[in-house]
Amino acid sequence: MFDQIERGEPVGKAEFNAVASELRTSLILTQQELRKADCPVLIIFGGVDGAGKSELAGLLNEWMDPRWIVTRAYGPRTRREKSRPEFWRYWVDIPPKGQIGVYLSAWYSQPLVDRVYGRLSKRKFERGLSRIKEFERCLADDGALVLKFWMHLDKGQQKRRLRKLEKQAAQHWKVSKQDWRNWENYDRFIDVAERIIEQTDAPYAPWRLVDGGDARYRSLVVLRTVHQAINDHLAARTRPHPAVLPSAAENGAGTAYAYSGPNSRPPLAQVDLSASVDKPVYGEKLPNLRRRLNGLYQRAKNQEMASVLVFEGWDAAGKGGTIRRITAALDARDYRIHPFAAPNDWEKSHHYLWRFWQRIPRDGKFAIFDRSWYGRVMVERVEGFASEPEWSRAFREIREFEDQIVEHGTLLMKFWLHIDPDEQARRFRSRAETPYKAWKLTDEDWRNRDRWSEYEAAVNEMVTRTSTAAAPWQLVPFNDKRHGRLEVLTRLCEAMERKLG
Amino acid sequence: MFDQIERGEPVGKAEFNAVASELRTSLILTQQELRKADCPVLIIFGGVDGAGKSELAGLLNEWMDPRWIVTRAYGPRTRREKSRPEFWRYWVDIPPKGQIGVYLSAWYSQPLVDRVYGRLSKRKFERGLSRIKEFERCLADDGALVLKFWMHLDKGQQKRRLRKLEKQAAQHWKVSKQDWRNWENYDRFIDVAERIIEQTDAPYAPWRLVDGGDARYRSLVVLRTVHQAINDHLAARTRPHPAVLPSAAENGAGTAYAYSGPNSRPPLAQVDLSASVDKPVYGEKLPNLRRRLNGLYQRAKNQEMASVLVFEGWDAAGKGGTIRRITAALDARDYRIHPFAAPNDWEKSHHYLWRFWQRIPRDGKFAIFDRSWYGRVMVERVEGFASEPEWSRAFREIREFEDQIVEHGTLLMKFWLHIDPDEQARRFRSRAETPYKAWKLTDEDWRNRDRWSEYEAAVNEMVTRTSTAAAPWQLVPFNDKRHGRLEVLTRLCEAMERKLG
Repeated sequence: MFDQIERGEPVGKAEFNAVASELRTSLILTQQELRKADCPVLIIFGGVDGAGKSELAGLLNEWMDPRWIVTRAYGPRTRREKSRPEFWRYWVDIPPKGQIGVYLSAWYSQPLVDRVYGRLSKRKFERGLSRIKEFERCLADDGALVLKFWMHLDKGQQKRRLRKLEKQAAQHWKVSKQDWRNWENYDRFIDVAERIIEQTDAPYAPWRLVDGGDARYRSLVVLRTVHQAINDHLAARTRPHPAVLPSAAENGAGTAYAYSGPNSRPPLAQVDLSASVDKPVYGEKLPNLRRRLNGLYQRAKNQEMASVLVFEGWDAAGKGGTIRRITAALDARDYRIHPFAAPNDWEKSHHYLWRFWQRIPRDGKFAIFDRSWYGRVMVERVEGFASEPEWSRAFREIREFEDQIVEHGTLLMKFWLHIDPDEQARRFRSRAETPYKAWKLTDEDWRNRDRWSEYEAAVNEMVTRTSTAAAPWQLVPFNDKRHGRLEVLTRLCEAMERKLG
Repeated sequence: MFDQIERGEPVGKAEFNAVASELRTSLILTQQELRKADCPVLIIFGGVDGAGKSELAGLLNEWMDPRWIVTRAYGPRTRREKSRPEFWRYWVDIPPKGQIGVYLSAWYSQPLVDRVYGRLSKRKFERGLSRIKEFERCLADDGALVLKFWMHLDKGQQKRRLRKLEKQAAQHWKVSKQDWRNWENYDRFIDVAERIIEQTDAPYAPWRLVDGGDARYRSLVVLRTVHQAINDHLAARTRPHPAVLPSAAENGAGTAYAYSGPNSRPPLAQVDLSASVDKPVYGEKLPNLRRRLNGLYQRAKNQEMASVLVFEGWDAAGKGGTIRRITAALDARDYRIHPFAAPNDWEKSHHYLWRFWQRIPRDGKFAIFDRSWYGRVMVERVEGFASEPEWSRAFREIREFEDQIVEHGTLLMKFWLHIDPDEQARRFRSRAETPYKAWKLTDEDWRNRDRWSEYEAAVNEMVTRTSTAAAPWQLVPFNDKRHGRLEVLTRLCEAMERKLG
């Protein structure tokens, strides 16, 4: 692969200066266009040490306005980063729309180095590459331009480069023993790099291989490409084009609509809403469950297992009350409740999953989501806030997102609190009649009610397409609140017991 | 003090329910008014364990809309929190305007417990209380309503309460050995609590002492007070009132205007702008300084010393180029450059210092601020974006902010890059003539130039009032960029050497 790279002819200083001036001007104009656009740009530099990655990042910051560029380089994961899924630190860092993120090695560094030195099994390595693809695709689908440059030096070039740096007093520190050790493993690095590039080269995030031997040559190649790519991207985004729906296989691979067959009913229709619990039984069982949950919470804390609890359900189903029954068993320092309304402007300027990634708890803690990322495939879908391609690919995005949470060792439980339209009407009326509850009832609630069957279809599809072995939906009947609360607490305790062993 | 607390007469269930309904309705209406207001509310519960702090937090969340309430309880500082100034974790958590922050013990817990058990010297304890006052005053000055409730139980009440909890199977976990140990130290706790309350009781954040013996009594007292206080606060904020300037003693204690005397000139006038450096000398010295800085950076990393570098200066003085000369000596994983433009909407909905607090580096790292919190007393002052009371109290706020950074052990350096108007005019013309630099020059730059003398006065006042022993302003002549850069690097190296010992 690397022997195919176009050899960089050295570029003279005069020649460079002659074109640099114009290129700088074009780049800054392009950046100003980008500022107004509805998408971010990610520029990722991977490749061989000494091939100019950080110099290029510096040049981008010098030639454009650094106020709208976010430059990031990641070291080994800190304790805080290790206590969350691997991609958490990248997700919370994504640039907002209109801005440029410049990444040095980024998510490519650890898989490469760890694989070369045998610290990563083949299986985990390949899994890591899939995660990278999912991440970049997720951003690209949302409109981000993802530019990746692999800066190359051959073995002889790299040796000369390291030698040269060592000889310069002010650069000497840049060359460490580890750099020489890496150089000795050059061939192994190249093998692994080839695999990485092959696996993560995609139409939405293609690699560009650049000869890093000559500083001026590589600068011109990279910056010209950046300029051209951003311009093309902005032009493509303003051109109206027919929305292309991802194929079913792409978005729903393996998740056929089980309920669409003649023999089975949709998930919600299978929920038995008749179950109920007497007040005395409830009064007896609730404290026992609370105690049981508290014991499990203590164990989870000791074993540093995080828990993510998602609550969705019909309006007035009883989310708030149920959440309070859970937190009554927890210490306030160890949980956070995250109620979600419509995103604010700053949240809107990021990928829709960004605000949820930010609230992923660290090991040992509870995060309780009162409404969640599922808004994408419910309210945003039904009310038309998300386009069909957007909500339709969200099923896959959500599965991938949750998969990372579960893979990290976190308990993820998703509860759908289910009631029927009659029960909802009763509760709405009761709210309307109770002065201190009336505020909870808005015109929107009545409007949503009119679209019950649309929401029902969306929920059925959501449950079917995002129930995975690792994180199945828990459909809980809530026509009787007492029964529903006990059921949620019981299922939560059981899941924690299974997970904690 | 505590024997003066009004004894809570037990409130019957019927009586409670009769008023609760109306109170809930009023609270929710008040919260809806608050949502539209330009200020946040902080509700802090301190006091004796078992006196109902978390129950009250729960009630606030139940009776109002939890989507606009942020509830926080803090455990012992994590590694991440310890690697920053103590108040960092509170600052990054402050509620946005229109919302309510509910805090359990919050910043009062650690001083109380640590002092009772002798883990905190008297001096540090008192200093901690001053920090609390500064923090709350800073928020209150910005319009926040700060409500503090001290929930009290006498020694006998607390014993009965702990006993009762222990007997209830589902509550038993709430009582730990530590709770009993604390109870045995009840008198000591009360002594320290009295001192805390005395010291942190202020007109802008008064304490309310509440008897926590009866759950319904305390709920009514607290929630009525919350309701009344928010209403009063909103009413006061919409009433036009004469802007009251804080007295000079309050804002500038101890920092007389040294340059206003007949014998001294203002700080900027004292900068010798004639200094210059030849290109060959520069070419020799720069790499040496870079190497020296790199060595110091390695030591700072090993000793886990963080560095905060602030760059301010006239337009076109050369901030960007100077910053790049510094970062050339650092590993990209260990520094972040934070260029600041006008705050975005989300930032605007917080205290102006909030966005800077968020970027305070952890131990061992560099944070480079390209423009900073000093915008408050320069551009915001001169252009009228901040009112006179706002920018005028900012001098003190900034000193207190920086004091916390320095106290943590962080190196804080503030550079003012100084040029004269003629030199600026030359650079503006050169920018205008160089295509790839023309974008840097906006109409605003020319407008700012017309207000040179206003800015000059503001900078002189800023330098005088925010140069402290721990973090003096570095005024660096930049008419000659080479000289200026060498000077910044030299002063930075010297300061690091002093600090690292």
